[in-house]
Amino acid sequence: MTHSLDPAALDQLFLQARTFNKFTAEPVGDDLLRQLYDLYKWGPTSMNTQPGRVVFVRTEEGKQKLKPALMPNNVDKTMAAPVVAIVALDTAFYEHMPTQFPANPAARDLFASNAGLSTDTATRNSSLQGAYLIMAARALGLAAGPMSGFNPTMVNEAFFPDGRWKANFLINLGWGDPSGNRPRGPRLAFEDGVVLA
Amino acid sequence: MTHSLDPAALDQLFLQARTFNKFTAEPVGDDLLRQLYDLYKWGPTSMNTQPGRVVFVRTEEGKQKLKPALMPNNVDKTMAAPVVAIVALDTAFYEHMPTQFPANPAARDLFASNAGLSTDTATRNSSLQGAYLIMAARALGLAAGPMSGFNPTMVNEAFFPDGRWKANFLINLGWGDPSGNRPRGPRLAFEDGVVLA
Repeated sequence: MTHSLDPAALDQLFLQARTFNKFTAEPVGDDLLRQLYDLYKWGPTSMNTQPGRVVFVRTEEGKQKLKPALMPNNVDKTMAAPVVAIVALDTAFYEHMPTQFPANPAARDLFASNAGLSTDTATRNSSLQGAYLIMAARALGLAAGPMSGFNPTMVNEAFFPDGRWKANFLINLGWGDPSGNRPRGPRLAFEDGVVLA
Repeated sequence: MTHSLDPAALDQLFLQARTFNKFTAEPVGDDLLRQLYDLYKWGPTSMNTQPGRVVFVRTEEGKQKLKPALMPNNVDKTMAAPVVAIVALDTAFYEHMPTQFPANPAARDLFASNAGLSTDTATRNSSLQGAYLIMAARALGLAAGPMSGFNPTMVNEAFFPDGRWKANFLINLGWGDPSGNRPRGPRLAFEDGVVLA
């Protein structure tokens, strides 16, 4: 466990990976979505809180429900994607802590009694879990197209009417067709993003 | 690019990966931290905003500056870790957009003029970038120990006195010594975390 993955794996995960806007006609089956969950679920969260939730939208009915919430430039590619993952958070994630963090029986109440802490924890850790999902998809050979360009209030009303889950961001998923890729953006230099102390 | 990584790679990234509390005496050089940045920087962010910043704390002086902000149960393991990454966000990330997202010259002002949008974007995307850092560390064979147990106000005062960067979470980094691992926590069942629509 103390060796680097081989160069091809680093390419697939990071160095040559791209955000995809277009996918092939090859379907993404529910069995693969389960395999994807069974990978990304292992990514670490604070006190094993796991506040991230996902709706995998892959039916025409589900997509029509999502469509009005999308920003105009995201509509066509999202409607054409085999699967759209709505990465969400569970505002009452702490209700699972008795089974998920049995080492600390006080953990549920720590979050349940502190709205600021529980909101921060849900926001930060559901985002981490969304990133794990992107990396797990790439690890399985799938292509991901994450997006923030949508109206979260509309998604919440359409998919989470009881108010317990809240949308965080979206990820189109499928088998990548690179013909839809845009030119790759640059990245900040080490000196602009990192400090050594 | 449309094949799964081999089982050993999936193990290293997710299936057998663990949060480490203890590290070997083997150092982590600055060249490796640059290699780490040159991997995780490629992870996608909304409109290529890249709001995530990192302070790699690896000197005794840097660690003493961090120490008072740590929760008691995180002190010993963090002081002993070869490197502590302070994952932070740049509240004025949009100042880099003219070079980082030249496709849309209006992008800087979109964020600069909307504090709610820029805070949400910085919070979500710096968390994504922290998760990419964890996955990139694992990909390189390093072990990661992410933590939220610290006082962010104290870290901000000690490391970011001008107020432009803000601490998000911490990640201990080094070569893993599994003797410090805790029993692995469970994960929510697919049915508890995922909806198919």
